[in-house]
Amino acid sequence: MPLYLCGELDPDERQAWLAALRASLPDERIEDSLDRLDPAAVDVALVANPPPGSLLGLPALRLVQSLWAGVDRLLADPTLPPRVPVARMVDPAMAAAMAETALWAVLSLHRGFFAYARQQRDERWQVLPQRRADEVRVAVLGLGELGRAAAARLALQGYRVEGWRQGATGSPARADMPVPAHEGASALAPLLAASDIVVNLLPLTPATRHLFDAQRFGAMKRGAALVNLARGAHVVEADLLAALDEGQLSHAVMDVFQAEPLPSGHPFWRHPQVTVLPHIAALTDARSAADSVAVNVRALRTGHPLAHLVDRGRGY
Amino acid sequence: MPLYLCGELDPDERQAWLAALRASLPDERIEDSLDRLDPAAVDVALVANPPPGSLLGLPALRLVQSLWAGVDRLLADPTLPPRVPVARMVDPAMAAAMAETALWAVLSLHRGFFAYARQQRDERWQVLPQRRADEVRVAVLGLGELGRAAAARLALQGYRVEGWRQGATGSPARADMPVPAHEGASALAPLLAASDIVVNLLPLTPATRHLFDAQRFGAMKRGAALVNLARGAHVVEADLLAALDEGQLSHAVMDVFQAEPLPSGHPFWRHPQVTVLPHIAALTDARSAADSVAVNVRALRTGHPLAHLVDRGRGY
Repeated sequence: MPLYLCGELDPDERQAWLAALRASLPDERIEDSLDRLDPAAVDVALVANPPPGSLLGLPALRLVQSLWAGVDRLLADPTLPPRVPVARMVDPAMAAAMAETALWAVLSLHRGFFAYARQQRDERWQVLPQRRADEVRVAVLGLGELGRAAAARLALQGYRVEGWRQGATGSPARADMPVPAHEGASALAPLLAASDIVVNLLPLTPATRHLFDAQRFGAMKRGAALVNLARGAHVVEADLLAALDEGQLSHAVMDVFQAEPLPSGHPFWRHPQVTVLPHIAALTDARSAADSVAVNVRALRTGHPLAHLVDRGRGY
Repeated sequence: MPLYLCGELDPDERQAWLAALRASLPDERIEDSLDRLDPAAVDVALVANPPPGSLLGLPALRLVQSLWAGVDRLLADPTLPPRVPVARMVDPAMAAAMAETALWAVLSLHRGFFAYARQQRDERWQVLPQRRADEVRVAVLGLGELGRAAAARLALQGYRVEGWRQGATGSPARADMPVPAHEGASALAPLLAASDIVVNLLPLTPATRHLFDAQRFGAMKRGAALVNLARGAHVVEADLLAALDEGQLSHAVMDVFQAEPLPSGHPFWRHPQVTVLPHIAALTDARSAADSVAVNVRALRTGHPLAHLVDRGRGY
């Protein structure tokens, strides 16, 4: 039974993925075009944000394995076959990369490195106050694979880290949390009010869309910073700009945006208190990700349970 | 016997130091002016880069305790009383701050965050290749308190870290090293040739002055980066600019300079591949540093061995 790789990949990425997947699954046939496959035989689709409708006409499909960690676009496709299991990507190299980006952003904010970069632009030499890491309170929102990896890495550096999650059924137990974990809507406001830096790693669902709006920014500690490494639609961008311009927030590190690539002329590009990253906080690493795919494909072939299945009702 | 605090401190710093020192040594008299002390009675000088000659006329002096980790300027004062022990500052909060700055610089280089900052200036959205931490080789030069703290922190993040020291007598044993440690002049060139990022935390001595010159840059891996967190005089600045402009080096993170503050119009300010920091990689934290001072003052009072004594021949 062949595997079908489809999605938005540039030619180099496509070749890298094919090579990595074929190396990790040497006994499987993997193609990136239905012209080279019998669509009626395909039982696994390996997908990277496929255009809507890509998975129609695959009657034998038994697994949709995402190559990306975020599945919000995939689940929004109304033609996604309704009864086929969907698995998210959990790639240890990607989790490490996300923890690195979260740590870099928190170090930059804590130690004033964004402010020093502005000073360099102005040829200004001025020493800013130095705080210890244990004087900096960091909230990590979202405690899935990526949120837990980031929270653990930050706690290891001595930051005062607390986590928050919505508390949907199926979440990992509290005992698996690397930091104190709060749960549910009522726990969010007090955590935001106490935190110097808020790192967003929530999944994008109807409940988290536009979570960061004027009201939520108003509930944050004055002068706090936002690090958005999750999805652009978590943030109402106009409200963020207003919070920065009023001084309610001091800085935002943004890896994701309502529209990507960030349009030319968007105010974030030139805002001195916004750091723009081109959605690179954590790239899936084809080498280790292919091994994760192989584990799930072998489980399917041998009748074992599939890992990292998406709950479509929950949205992740 | 009173303690005399002297050196280049602005009024706020001076008050913070006096308050912290008095809190850590409640039974001692500590003043920052000889007008309020009997100079003939002063037995401890607490110094922060004192102007040359500051310690003349203190016949009872038994300890010069530096509040800063670097003592090269202090030792260069020809009027420094020749037979009085000099102690360096070893402040755990300062070592933590240095490890944070080294980690931030290495993360920024490894993950392309300086390049992404340039992209933001140009409103350019482009994804750069992502390497794993264990694919990045980092050399830490200098394995004193600060070098070891930085090397340990970097190794903890998964970087391939190796250390180098000159190998003077009195260095800590290899068993205390958090990373593989090379020693002596002949070991330096192979390490430089193999390293993607070189972090300098050497003491400034006649042997290390101008260590980073055209020849040494030529011995580095093509496209490597330099992070100088030690002293400006370790680097021949014109040779660094040439190495950057030739592409031999890709980037330099510079916290220290030949002249500080970095003069207006200096080419580093506007160089796209130079990150300028105003000598803030690690500030001594008066709160924890005062406790270190107290340990040495009590040792002096009770006849116990003094800690962190400087070897004037070695220069640190």
